Amino acid sequence: MADSLRIGIAGLGTVGASLVRILQQRSNELAITCGRAIEIIAVSARDRSRDRGIDLTGITWFDTPEQLASEAEIDVFVELVGGASGQAENAVRAALARGLHVVTANKALLAKHGVELATIAEDKGALLNFEAAVAGGIPVIKALRESLTGNHVSRIYGIMNGTCNYILTKMEKEGLSFEACLKEAQRLGYAEADPAFDIEGNDTAHKLAILTTLAFGNKISADDIYLEGITNISSEDIQAAAELGYRIKLLGVAQVTESGIEQRVHPTMVPLDSVIAQVDGVTNAVAIESDILGELLMVGPGAGGNATASAVLGDIADIAKSRPGAQQVPVLGRPAKSLTEYRRAKMKSHEGGYFIRLTVKDQAGVFASIATRMADNNISLESIVQRQRVHVEGAPQTIILVTHATMEDAIRKAVKAIKNEKYLVSEPQVIRIERT
Amino acid sequence: MADSLRIGIAGLGTVGASLVRILQQRSNELAITCGRAIEIIAVSARDRSRDRGIDLTGITWFDTPEQLASEAEIDVFVELVGGASGQAENAVRAALARGLHVVTANKALLAKHGVELATIAEDKGALLNFEAAVAGGIPVIKALRESLTGNHVSRIYGIMNGTCNYILTKMEKEGLSFEACLKEAQRLGYAEADPAFDIEGNDTAHKLAILTTLAFGNKISADDIYLEGITNISSEDIQAAAELGYRIKLLGVAQVTESGIEQRVHPTMVPLDSVIAQVDGVTNAVAIESDILGELLMVGPGAGGNATASAVLGDIADIAKSRPGAQQVPVLGRPAKSLTEYRRAKMKSHEGGYFIRLTVKDQAGVFASIATRMADNNISLESIVQRQRVHVEGAPQTIILVTHATMEDAIRKAVKAIKNEKYLVSEPQVIRIERT
Ligand SMILES: NC(=O)c1ccc[n+]([C@@H]2O[C@H](COP(=O)([O-])OP(=O)(O)OC[C@H]3O[C@@H](n4cnc5c(N)ncnc54)[C@H](OP(=O)(O)O)[C@@H]3O)[C@@H](O)[C@H]2O)c1
Ligand SMILES: NC(=O)c1ccc[n+]([C@@H]2O[C@H](COP(=O)([O-])OP(=O)(O)OC[C@H]3O[C@@H](n4cnc5c(N)ncnc54)[C@H](OP(=O)(O)O)[C@@H]3O)[C@@H](O)[C@H]2O)c1
Repeated sequence: MADSLRIGIAGLGTVGASLVRILQQRSNELAITCGRAIEIIAVSARDRSRDRGIDLTGITWFDTPEQLASEAEIDVFVELVGGASGQAENAVRAALARGLHVVTANKALLAKHGVELATIAEDKGALLNFEAAVAGGIPVIKALRESLTGNHVSRIYGIMNGTCNYILTKMEKEGLSFEACLKEAQRLGYAEADPAFDIEGNDTAHKLAILTTLAFGNKISADDIYLEGITNISSEDIQAAAELGYRIKLLGVAQVTESGIEQRVHPTMVPLDSVIAQVDGVTNAVAIESDILGELLMVGPGAGGNATASAVLGDIADIAKSRPGAQQVPVLGRPAKSLTEYRRAKMKSHEGGYFIRLTVKDQAGVFASIATRMADNNISLESIVQRQRVHVEGAPQTIILVTHATMEDAIRKAVKAIKNEKYLVSEPQVIRIERT
Repeated sequence: MADSLRIGIAGLGTVGASLVRILQQRSNELAITCGRAIEIIAVSARDRSRDRGIDLTGITWFDTPEQLASEAEIDVFVELVGGASGQAENAVRAALARGLHVVTANKALLAKHGVELATIAEDKGALLNFEAAVAGGIPVIKALRESLTGNHVSRIYGIMNGTCNYILTKMEKEGLSFEACLKEAQRLGYAEADPAFDIEGNDTAHKLAILTTLAFGNKISADDIYLEGITNISSEDIQAAAELGYRIKLLGVAQVTESGIEQRVHPTMVPLDSVIAQVDGVTNAVAIESDILGELLMVGPGAGGNATASAVLGDIADIAKSRPGAQQVPVLGRPAKSLTEYRRAKMKSHEGGYFIRLTVKDQAGVFASIATRMADNNISLESIVQRQRVHVEGAPQTIILVTHATMEDAIRKAVKAIKNEKYLVSEPQVIRIERT
């Protein structure tokens, strides 16, 4: 049997502690499967005295991830600290500078410094694996980086934030408000005390940025992503969606258009009978459309200590199974130096169907006026419905429109024109419909 | 750039011709992604004069796959001939004997000789890749062999035959008979002229046998699989399923039980609102349940020249990206020599819910008799419904039972006892319900 693969793990939190536990419990089988033992040589975290329920006897403790990455006698540095900069970044740079292979679950770091780190890794002949960084346990990085080699991807989209999907699922199933469901998600540990990063869509955007690069070969460009979170989604929207045969999901979508690559994160209506509409709770899903393979959809756990550690372990095992000196698999699908500049498609040029919910004063001519404003902008309607659940003379009415595929620009102009008419009682709600 | 990867392709049919086309059209990009060119050196098929719509100029023609595998100056032998023995087998053996890497899409060959071929490959330090052999373009082999390393799989199940899924989908959507849908599948080229291999479940069994080995580490044992095809499924079953909140799919299922590994292929009721129930037409799906990762589901095209060629290309690219001398990834997930004997669980001990449809004479006491026979065998019922769409005095009645989880043995005994009562007008229909 070959020499053991020596690894150092920085970060012993939710993911790191799970990983240590699994590596220790399954060390014999892993040695058989991988053809050599995987040995934890060194670890690092902030608080040395904290009881993590794992046995660290015989493992060298380093006070900082950077020290571990710089000094430990290891083959692979595993970064499970988190954060786009600081210790995580410094340590990964230090490891790559020594030519060590790196495994990380850190989407923030990759979304910010991915191209630079990939370049260093490739120059050094080191591997940089990051399956856990996007959609947790779902092997979407491997699918894009390896299985789809040679394919031209046209669109990639997915449910990549468990917190948002949990909230939307619960709002629908139990008819509760956004706020109530967010509180429940926090109580169950699905949402952070400060949930903004999840519910505003930033977390999804980081993951989408990484997938976009793997799919289309452009440099990572997380700041260019159009962003709308789910804080604005009401029970009324969810119910109206269901009545129209849709379900609302927070999707990250990247697609090739004539004017460039569209990258967007927003609440989206997907057909009720589509596979992705069935993806409930904290589960994630990613769909990839490509020209040779066709459409591939993967569904699975997007977070959690074990599911994430499983992806990290897969990355480590890939390194263990290859032999030293075997340089493989460009980090971002293509050699980092061949990645192209990101060419951004204008969101105004986005084409698709739209759901528009308007709350209007109960006055004559409103319905006709709305229909006229849509027609003025050449928007063709699939349906327009006016309703008032319980008819009360003079109370506000709800008008719901569903459009055929049209340009975002036209929608914006039409909605603006409608707003100018002064019969709206509250802000109009506009939700994009995604073909799945 | 490193030396080019020289490949020989035997079989230029649906898959082989697609592969040649893609390799030629995308040669520049592939060279960039893989870090070296992929060069087709040699090909082989039966009929040299046949126009395949591909340009074979400059490529050496061999009259037999075996000759190609034995003599061509290549690094990788790609087998796209098909068949469990004969030329395909001989050629793969010849290639491995020379230490060549092999890529194949041949499930029949692997289901029969997989363990032996894996052993030879590992002894020779050669790679044997076969992503396309199961569920076409869906990267399920990679998921099991690489991503899930370290996980203990408890169950794997899937829709792995497009012909059957097409027929079942069409029967439901259009209310047509099995025969009518099979004819349509043949007209569209989804089903062979002799469709037995697909509709009797044998094709699914081959694939399941391969997945079982990857999931559980046992030797491949295709002959031990319990088999029921879809020829017996009627529109009435499909409609009754829908009314009860189920959809009928032909599933291959392998799971660990106390008495061994259950491997079975049969029509199955899955909950209407499950993700897998939404998998329509020729699309395939595979679900994997494991202890660290949780549940992973992959959905995609299970056949077709391009989708299958995409998987073959991924396998070739994996070899191109690794450097010579790099031995990796045990062929069947674990080193072939460490695979265990297959321990078969008795089908009689299968536990699950059952759907039973009985057509009975319109006579007093039948309903009570059926309920009593079930109770005699300790089968607890979720529902029992008697109905006659249009009531005609004396015409046969339909009785539909759905059981709670129970033993197959008890069901068989109860059904036998009911048959002995002589009030059945036709054979009872029994369909297993699968928890998804
Ligand atoms: N949790 C998930 O479900 C999940 C899913 C996908 C990806 N990820 C990614 O996985 C990574 C780890 O996530 P996690 O949930 O395991 O985080 P966590 O529970 O907060 O653990 C972070 C670990 O890093 C250590 N650490 C933090 N800052 C440090 C510093 N400046 N110096 C040294 N050590 C430091 C902490 O030490 P102490 O323990 O001493 O405080 C802790 O052990 C992140 O990049 C995250 O985005 C997580
Ligand atoms: N088609 C799919 O969608 C699909 C999906 C998954 C896996 N697969 C697998 O892929 C493999 C190829 O399938 P396919 O659909 O491409 O089959 P195919 O269209 O029937 O092509 C078979 C090729 O092999 C050649 N061939 C057959 N017998 C031969 C022999 N004795 N000596 C030399 N050449 C011989 C044929 O030559 P001629 O052209 O001269 O007759 C033909 O080029 C099979 O193992 C199949 O199970 C196929």
